[in-house]
Amino acid sequence: MEEAVAVQMAELSRRSRVPVATIKYYLREGLLPPGTPTSATRAEYGEAHLRRLRLIRALVEIGEIPVAAVGHILARVDDESVSLHDMFGAVQYSLRPQPTRPILDADGQAASHEVDELIAELGWRITPDAPARALLASALAALRRADAPQGPGLHAYASAMAALAAKEVPSVAPSGSDGKSRVELAEGAVAAMVLYERVLVALRRLAQEDASARFFGGR
Amino acid sequence: MEEAVAVQMAELSRRSRVPVATIKYYLREGLLPPGTPTSATRAEYGEAHLRRLRLIRALVEIGEIPVAAVGHILARVDDESVSLHDMFGAVQYSLRPQPTRPILDADGQAASHEVDELIAELGWRITPDAPARALLASALAALRRADAPQGPGLHAYASAMAALAAKEVPSVAPSGSDGKSRVELAEGAVAAMVLYERVLVALRRLAQEDASARFFGGR
Repeated sequence: MEEAVAVQMAELSRRSRVPVATIKYYLREGLLPPGTPTSATRAEYGEAHLRRLRLIRALVEIGEIPVAAVGHILARVDDESVSLHDMFGAVQYSLRPQPTRPILDADGQAASHEVDELIAELGWRITPDAPARALLASALAALRRADAPQGPGLHAYASAMAALAAKEVPSVAPSGSDGKSRVELAEGAVAAMVLYERVLVALRRLAQEDASARFFGGR
Repeated sequence: MEEAVAVQMAELSRRSRVPVATIKYYLREGLLPPGTPTSATRAEYGEAHLRRLRLIRALVEIGEIPVAAVGHILARVDDESVSLHDMFGAVQYSLRPQPTRPILDADGQAASHEVDELIAELGWRITPDAPARALLASALAALRRADAPQGPGLHAYASAMAALAAKEVPSVAPSGSDGKSRVELAEGAVAAMVLYERVLVALRRLAQEDASARFFGGR
């Protein structure tokens, strides 16, 4: 719910930990809506601005999404006619890492084919232009070229990720039942999509450190 | 096994897809051992150079590890007195994303505490300076600030990652049984550590796109 709090730029900067110059940049780029003018040179900002700033920072700092793409995502957060699926897609297709140009040698082609086959076998509904296809193919091609050990196999990773996604996607969906506005719910869902990927990567590294310590007897 | 193949710089560049200038830079930085001189101005390079170049590219391009840190990792690959645990640690602690400076406000402190508690509850063996601790804490702090939905819960992610790590870490460990040298096995294991993280992230995004399509009825 919108609280009746209005602050000036300096206070907005303090509370959001975003420098004034950066806030002004976001205002110029249209990422942040203008404040309410209180004089010719001053304006007041409310809780909606603070929330929006936090979301922008999560997208820019944790998602490492370029400012232009952040504007594209926020337009979908604010547009009630955009489906949640398309809103999540706009976020996910902008996240780093992005695929580099494909390498179409024999390993690259074999890896692309492996990705297509895996998606077909699993019956996953994925658009042909999903960047994660190329991201996966480039990693698989590099694994082939490096003659790296097999690991637990693609299906083990895919099953684990499908099980998590089946819990995560519904749970971050705006449920609309706790008195929040659609924009507030959409903002929370977008932040969650970006931040849980970081949570997963960090937990993977911690789990691997522990497994390595147990398996190889570490410090 | 080392094949008796010796090529000149131009051919090494063609086969590795690494530009000659970049190969020369790696030679100067000591990432790549010198070739065998065949005249005052020429040298020949073998399969070991090609393998090493592929490993460097995986670390630099997929792991986004700075060249100085790549040298640090390769020194551990080549040093038989370094334990596998320490070799894997050198890789993992260098991978992007790295944590940014910690934000020690109330949310940041609560998040750090949450990470410590989780690791203690799970009984994971993690060094106090593991960068993934701060990486996880910064994501959890941002989730708190964004008032984001709860998601499936930290323990669900942690269990899934522990189950994968318990398969992955032993499987990428050099087994030493297929006629490969220790360096070859270590190179493969290091490449696998970096590349499987990319595989996991890509599969997560694909699984989420599918879950979103099913849950929200997408295109």
